[in-house]
Amino acid sequence: MNQDIQKNRMTDTTITVLGTDGTPLANQQVIIAQTKHKFLFGTAAFDLVPLAGGQYTGKELEQAEQRSEKLTALFNAATLPFYWARFEPERGKPITEQVKNAARWAIDHGMITKGHPLCWHTLTADWLLSMSNAEILQAQIDRIHRDVSDFRGLIDMWDVINEAVIMPVFDKYDNGITRICKELGRIKTIKTMFDAARETNPTATLFINDFDVSSAYDILIEGCLEAGIKFEAIGIQSHMHQGWWGVEKTLQVLENFERFNLPIHFTETTLVSGHLMPPEIVDLNDYQVTDWPTTPEGEERQARETIQHYETLMAHPLVEGITWWDMTDGNWLNAPAGLIRKDGSSKPAYDELLKRVKEEWWASPTKFTTDGNGRVHFSGFLGDYELTYRETKRYFQLARENLPTIEIRV
Amino acid sequence: MNQDIQKNRMTDTTITVLGTDGTPLANQQVIIAQTKHKFLFGTAAFDLVPLAGGQYTGKELEQAEQRSEKLTALFNAATLPFYWARFEPERGKPITEQVKNAARWAIDHGMITKGHPLCWHTLTADWLLSMSNAEILQAQIDRIHRDVSDFRGLIDMWDVINEAVIMPVFDKYDNGITRICKELGRIKTIKTMFDAARETNPTATLFINDFDVSSAYDILIEGCLEAGIKFEAIGIQSHMHQGWWGVEKTLQVLENFERFNLPIHFTETTLVSGHLMPPEIVDLNDYQVTDWPTTPEGEERQARETIQHYETLMAHPLVEGITWWDMTDGNWLNAPAGLIRKDGSSKPAYDELLKRVKEEWWASPTKFTTDGNGRVHFSGFLGDYELTYRETKRYFQLARENLPTIEIRV
Repeated sequence: MNQDIQKNRMTDTTITVLGTDGTPLANQQVIIAQTKHKFLFGTAAFDLVPLAGGQYTGKELEQAEQRSEKLTALFNAATLPFYWARFEPERGKPITEQVKNAARWAIDHGMITKGHPLCWHTLTADWLLSMSNAEILQAQIDRIHRDVSDFRGLIDMWDVINEAVIMPVFDKYDNGITRICKELGRIKTIKTMFDAARETNPTATLFINDFDVSSAYDILIEGCLEAGIKFEAIGIQSHMHQGWWGVEKTLQVLENFERFNLPIHFTETTLVSGHLMPPEIVDLNDYQVTDWPTTPEGEERQARETIQHYETLMAHPLVEGITWWDMTDGNWLNAPAGLIRKDGSSKPAYDELLKRVKEEWWASPTKFTTDGNGRVHFSGFLGDYELTYRETKRYFQLARENLPTIEIRV
Repeated sequence: MNQDIQKNRMTDTTITVLGTDGTPLANQQVIIAQTKHKFLFGTAAFDLVPLAGGQYTGKELEQAEQRSEKLTALFNAATLPFYWARFEPERGKPITEQVKNAARWAIDHGMITKGHPLCWHTLTADWLLSMSNAEILQAQIDRIHRDVSDFRGLIDMWDVINEAVIMPVFDKYDNGITRICKELGRIKTIKTMFDAARETNPTATLFINDFDVSSAYDILIEGCLEAGIKFEAIGIQSHMHQGWWGVEKTLQVLENFERFNLPIHFTETTLVSGHLMPPEIVDLNDYQVTDWPTTPEGEERQARETIQHYETLMAHPLVEGITWWDMTDGNWLNAPAGLIRKDGSSKPAYDELLKRVKEEWWASPTKFTTDGNGRVHFSGFLGDYELTYRETKRYFQLARENLPTIEIRV
């Protein structure tokens, strides 16, 4: 295993197994098994909205259930859709209940949920266009108050603002959010949105998120921090439809952001298993194709690059999560960007990733025998664990902040 | 004349000419002549250091004097060199007196002086390399205190920091300034340097300056403003060795910065009169040639583009100055970037620019006859003027903040 992954993701511990009376249980057999990763292996899980909402039937339902099994087998985090145009197509009629069902489903399946995004110029509500800037700003703040409040407990992690670097100069079409960002400037816009989210859910994990990984983004973050804005994490998109960044660029991007010493999440990771999008495309949305097939060679390349990308990121101490985008082929841009083909079968990238996440980087149930003092020495990936002694199960966490020893009474 | 130039650069006024007893002088002839532009037509005037320092003799001196005549005929602002490596090659032995002579020469010839730059990673002192970061920072602050103090009254306009966008990630060679900027971050570095300059000369005009005109620069400025840093002006370089930006890009750049409503100076403007530098060069300093000739076609192109560039900038209300870089061929990069050839003769760009600056955009001595109330109606470019009545000369200014009428007692 990559030495840095081992160093940054694993920890050693000594577990002392005690009987009900507090005496160490010497020379006893226990089984230790990991139940969850601390690292967030996430995916865009928009498919959960129709699934949990009962919108699939028959064959479609069967396929959706198969996809959801693959989802929960590999991932422990789900990004759920809050694109304003779709979340509240008619003002005052948000699809709150539908998305709540999806969030509940994800939580019931042991996943961390994240809402994406609260403020973005793309796919924002078109009914903002008839408003004054003051009204748009108020509507945007109200929307954040409402949704962060409605979902508190179901979703406590948010992409508060998306793509603020380009937001005020975005010129492909008129939209309400670009208008207010042009007037307020980027930093005041970001501050306003973070204040709105923070005051509604003070313990939420709030992200800034961008596809721009040039100096413009890290300079923007520096300006925001100087202006007193608090980010729990920096979100970096890596939609690599035009080809894998490679290790060097990935490390360069990480270096640009690591000086803030804040958690970094790779929030939107794409590697296609078909032909690459031509390099001359600047806005990925401009690439409109009806057919973009997955190919055997593409799938091999995707698998190889996916593992290299995940390994590169897992080796960096500040990266706390990677979200794949999308899980199944044929969603955004009709791209073969999935880990799963349209027919529901797994691509090599899925299989290889699963091998890492649930085998190489994972502690499957393992028998240990305690020593004369009831102790077991154990080294594992940070996360949640289960210890079984005879018929008794106990749970513990491996965390950086742990004492080097854990006592478990069985 | 371009309507926007007229609107933004000229003003109407009514001058009432009064006798010594205060009575209006009706039906009298006066001559009005402009003596100075408010707009800064500047140039890099490094040549003044050896000229004013008496370092030229014989033929060289004659040529340098010819150049200086062309300098003062066209320009009213001179940028003087403060590159640390050259200004203080040995620690504690700055060439203060030499540069003071140049500044005095410029002021004696009616020019505004500017020092360039106080903090920059390129051409910084190499003796910083043996110091700790804390020592480098202190040396840089001390240098600003010393030079801004030494030159107070001679130079009250400074490029405080140069190229901060790339400063912390500049990786062509190790240098003291990149080291401290990497540690402090861009905004704290900028704040530190501006604080040092401001506390030494509170009424100075202090610039931030950069060649990077992408969003990174305007986002950096926004961050600095949010952090409470005050800029008197935003400096934008436009070294167009690879070809003129054209009107559209120039307007786009202006639009990116105009939201700050701060004066904008085009601090380093280059258009070559020879072949263009190949587009694949990223750092202009990488283009090393021994011979880069000026050509007749190149000179025609340079003249045409220079006038278009100046007209585009003059038409924008926030632009307050344009500095040409360099005045004579064969300086930086050995480029045919001058308005004057190596033999001292003027290129078409010089002649055309002079026609604008001292003819089209200028009030040559003109006779007026006062009306029955001693009044003359006059429209001119903002700047300094001289009114002559018989043997008496009086001076006045045309400024935006003027009352619509001026009374002059002769």
